[in-house]
Amino acid sequence: MRVSELSRSSGVPVATIKYYLRENLLHRGETTSPNQARYDDTHLRRLRLVRALVEVGGLPVATVRDVLAAVDDPGVDLHSVLGRTVSAITRDPGAADERAVGDADTDLATITSHTGWRVHDGAPALAGARSVLARMHELGQAPGEDTLRAWADAADRAAEGDLLAVRRSSGREEAAETALVGTVLGDALLASLRRVAQESRSAQLYRG
Amino acid sequence: MRVSELSRSSGVPVATIKYYLRENLLHRGETTSPNQARYDDTHLRRLRLVRALVEVGGLPVATVRDVLAAVDDPGVDLHSVLGRTVSAITRDPGAADERAVGDADTDLATITSHTGWRVHDGAPALAGARSVLARMHELGQAPGEDTLRAWADAADRAAEGDLLAVRRSSGREEAAETALVGTVLGDALLASLRRVAQESRSAQLYRG
Repeated sequence: MRVSELSRSSGVPVATIKYYLRENLLHRGETTSPNQARYDDTHLRRLRLVRALVEVGGLPVATVRDVLAAVDDPGVDLHSVLGRTVSAITRDPGAADERAVGDADTDLATITSHTGWRVHDGAPALAGARSVLARMHELGQAPGEDTLRAWADAADRAAEGDLLAVRRSSGREEAAETALVGTVLGDALLASLRRVAQESRSAQLYRG
Repeated sequence: MRVSELSRSSGVPVATIKYYLRENLLHRGETTSPNQARYDDTHLRRLRLVRALVEVGGLPVATVRDVLAAVDDPGVDLHSVLGRTVSAITRDPGAADERAVGDADTDLATITSHTGWRVHDGAPALAGARSVLARMHELGQAPGEDTLRAWADAADRAAEGDLLAVRRSSGREEAAETALVGTVLGDALLASLRRVAQESRSAQLYRG
């Protein structure tokens, strides 16, 4: 198909497609004349993926390029694709005071002893969790142990669902794409579902 | 304390504090002279909250003002504070094609029959979940029923933790603040914890 048809099918404007081609978010089409190229379903599929990561996940274009490069590189194993995705999409929540960080570490110990998670001390996701917990302590809004355990169970069950999805995919590239979509769009979905559950539970508690 | 001390204690620059005062994100201090005002711990507390919502939650300043107005208004019940917060922070993930939206509704039926959630059809969080699921269908990355059930359980357990935290707070305003912090910072925390759990589980599966 021509670029105009690719634009119609994907809902992405031609100018944006050309920008993605320049930025290596999209592979070149087959050149049919000095000014024209032919595109196929692989382009359509990739464009939809880029659009979803940008629009639903709110990822900057440079981040999308980096994580897609990891997905496309057969030399990068699945665990590392997940790792790079996580590093790329974790927001740095800024510094908190020392005492709050100490309290956050106590919370993390509660969580990991409850769940049995085994992760490297320097894992970026762990640093992200520590920073958010430290902020909660600074605000006088630290979660109690019952809430910590509930959130840890929730994260563990969510990850179980994530890995079920990845295991169903066939081949490294499909699995990597599933992991990427599951992580980025999954964050948005889980946040929405948590709110649906909050609403259902809070309506029962406060109005029912 | 003076504005300079408020700035030091909160880590928020004086110019930003003055901007927040103009934008009604922060209540005025007690005027001590035509050019000076005195601030207290209520200002420090509020500034930390604003900073966390902006830096950790990534909320625009106008959104922070709207949700804090709901927290501060004694006429707004807790369920509505949660509702307004959810509406304010839910990203619109854009349109998906009709068939994908139909498939997403089937997924939502699977989820609500599994969890027993009772929510209004027009709830913004439900619309958010529908849009993200539709995008996943468009990408050929729709979660299987086992993944859907895992994510639904995760959201339900997370919400259970949220409401445990809210029930522990004393008084409407504290509960509203807890709900707000738990929802916004909790999203960031749960996303991080999910990644810690993914990493622990995926290292075992793919490397262990």
